[in-house]
Amino acid sequence: MLVRAFIPAHITAFFVPRFHDDPLKAGSLGAGINLDKGTNVFASIEGGTLERHIHAAFNGEPVGKRDAEITYYVAENLVPEDFLGEVEIWQYFDFPNGHGFGNSAGGALGTALALSYAFGGTWLSAAKLAHEAEVIHKGGLGDVVGQLAGGIEVRVKAGGPGIGVVDNLFFEDYRVLVVPLGPLHTREVLDGDVVKAIEVEGSKALDALLKDPRPERMMVLARSFAEGTGLLTGDLMELAREIDKVLKNPSSMIMLGKGLFALLRKNEVDDVKSLLADLGVPYDITGIHWERPKVGRWFEGGSE
Amino acid sequence: MLVRAFIPAHITAFFVPRFHDDPLKAGSLGAGINLDKGTNVFASIEGGTLERHIHAAFNGEPVGKRDAEITYYVAENLVPEDFLGEVEIWQYFDFPNGHGFGNSAGGALGTALALSYAFGGTWLSAAKLAHEAEVIHKGGLGDVVGQLAGGIEVRVKAGGPGIGVVDNLFFEDYRVLVVPLGPLHTREVLDGDVVKAIEVEGSKALDALLKDPRPERMMVLARSFAEGTGLLTGDLMELAREIDKVLKNPSSMIMLGKGLFALLRKNEVDDVKSLLADLGVPYDITGIHWERPKVGRWFEGGSE
Repeated sequence: MLVRAFIPAHITAFFVPRFHDDPLKAGSLGAGINLDKGTNVFASIEGGTLERHIHAAFNGEPVGKRDAEITYYVAENLVPEDFLGEVEIWQYFDFPNGHGFGNSAGGALGTALALSYAFGGTWLSAAKLAHEAEVIHKGGLGDVVGQLAGGIEVRVKAGGPGIGVVDNLFFEDYRVLVVPLGPLHTREVLDGDVVKAIEVEGSKALDALLKDPRPERMMVLARSFAEGTGLLTGDLMELAREIDKVLKNPSSMIMLGKGLFALLRKNEVDDVKSLLADLGVPYDITGIHWERPKVGRWFEGGSE
Repeated sequence: MLVRAFIPAHITAFFVPRFHDDPLKAGSLGAGINLDKGTNVFASIEGGTLERHIHAAFNGEPVGKRDAEITYYVAENLVPEDFLGEVEIWQYFDFPNGHGFGNSAGGALGTALALSYAFGGTWLSAAKLAHEAEVIHKGGLGDVVGQLAGGIEVRVKAGGPGIGVVDNLFFEDYRVLVVPLGPLHTREVLDGDVVKAIEVEGSKALDALLKDPRPERMMVLARSFAEGTGLLTGDLMELAREIDKVLKNPSSMIMLGKGLFALLRKNEVDDVKSLLADLGVPYDITGIHWERPKVGRWFEGGSE
């Protein structure tokens, strides 16, 4: 059996981490955007071998347990102990790992949904396990619940699925510009001194957004957060200023990656494309993914 | 400005009411299915008059406050006090009112989303208001959160949006048969002696479903609930037995309407159609609505 799941990429605009010993109570407050591109997970399940085997691959390359702790944690929990067969988890990422697109959560949630679909379970049980894996292995705190919410989401109560509460903003048909320039390691930032500033600036941004809950306001607050925490500086800040010259709403920094994002109106797409081509930086322009993650049986060679 | 919202019809398979003085803590446990047909709400908002006017119409017929308490409650809360203009709420229902399709919740949620989209607010604030209106005016307890969840939903923690927790079952491509034969008044059933039986049978069904969370199991449990509570009897029971003869999974009763529903596999559609045509009963066959409710600006004469 082959099962496919698609999980949107999720970029965070601003956030407040909420740590807790119980992984389901750990999470984050904040706001973010789900994209039409993201993570595709294909789970291939074939019985009939003498042992229970679980394998994972990222973008076609096999990965061992040490390099895919989150995926193996999820799979080990969902493949029954007495299953004799081969389970292969193929994860394909539209954006680079470590750049702040929620790839690890996408892999965790996609794996959890695909294996729950095959072996039994519900959306909530799958989502809880993916969140737990993310928190325990420090992949992220708010991506799983953000991806489940879709669209432009606002985490108003921290926690995992069934505990956290996620709101959504209304939005018109914006496109999203993303400029991924390099990785930032979530666990290093969250272990450092900047956490205090993130808590102060993130809470301020969330309060202000809830008073005026519009995507345009979110971008202004995201930018204040990025600058106020000291995370957006140097070359990245200069690039943000260049981009701002051709857009109505401010660009901001992808949390947490060395990269930028912005909301584009239709008539701004061409200008920003030629600017970024001139500057020679990599970029992508995608839609906002408003629907849920997808999961279902996959028939090779097309739909049945 | 014209804003359109679509809210799926929501039929309940089994339930346990949970009453509470705080409307947001009132709700229900249980399971249900969202359909591809449902309620379309068009909110027309035009400023520039000397007074603030709110009007509503059901299926094209104007309705006064006494006959549309829920809609007016929602609209009065969302149209600003100082707005000078005409607000018209046009609600169109694909299924008849009072037959257990969640029309009142569809109207409440559609109105809340459309007016929040126009005047400001978020998905969560709109959803809370719609649930509150439903509970206060006894439209229903679980339809709003069920409609927000989409698909085949299981209410595992009772309460309104942000408090209740709703799970989803995985399902393959079933069609849904609905046979609406007449109205049942929610408030009369919930005020009667049957509530005790509903609580006992509903809790039993929920526990059993969570141990084996599959749509096929839900139908078996729904049928036990319908019979165990004494709600499914007489002619309706006989019709259910006729339908069962041509289906793999049992049919059950729409809670709360005088009607039946069933999950259809592709190869069962023709048989059930000819059976129901022979019997001369009204029916409809629709898909399961897995996506979210929709809301957005509406451009007359087609999409822009």
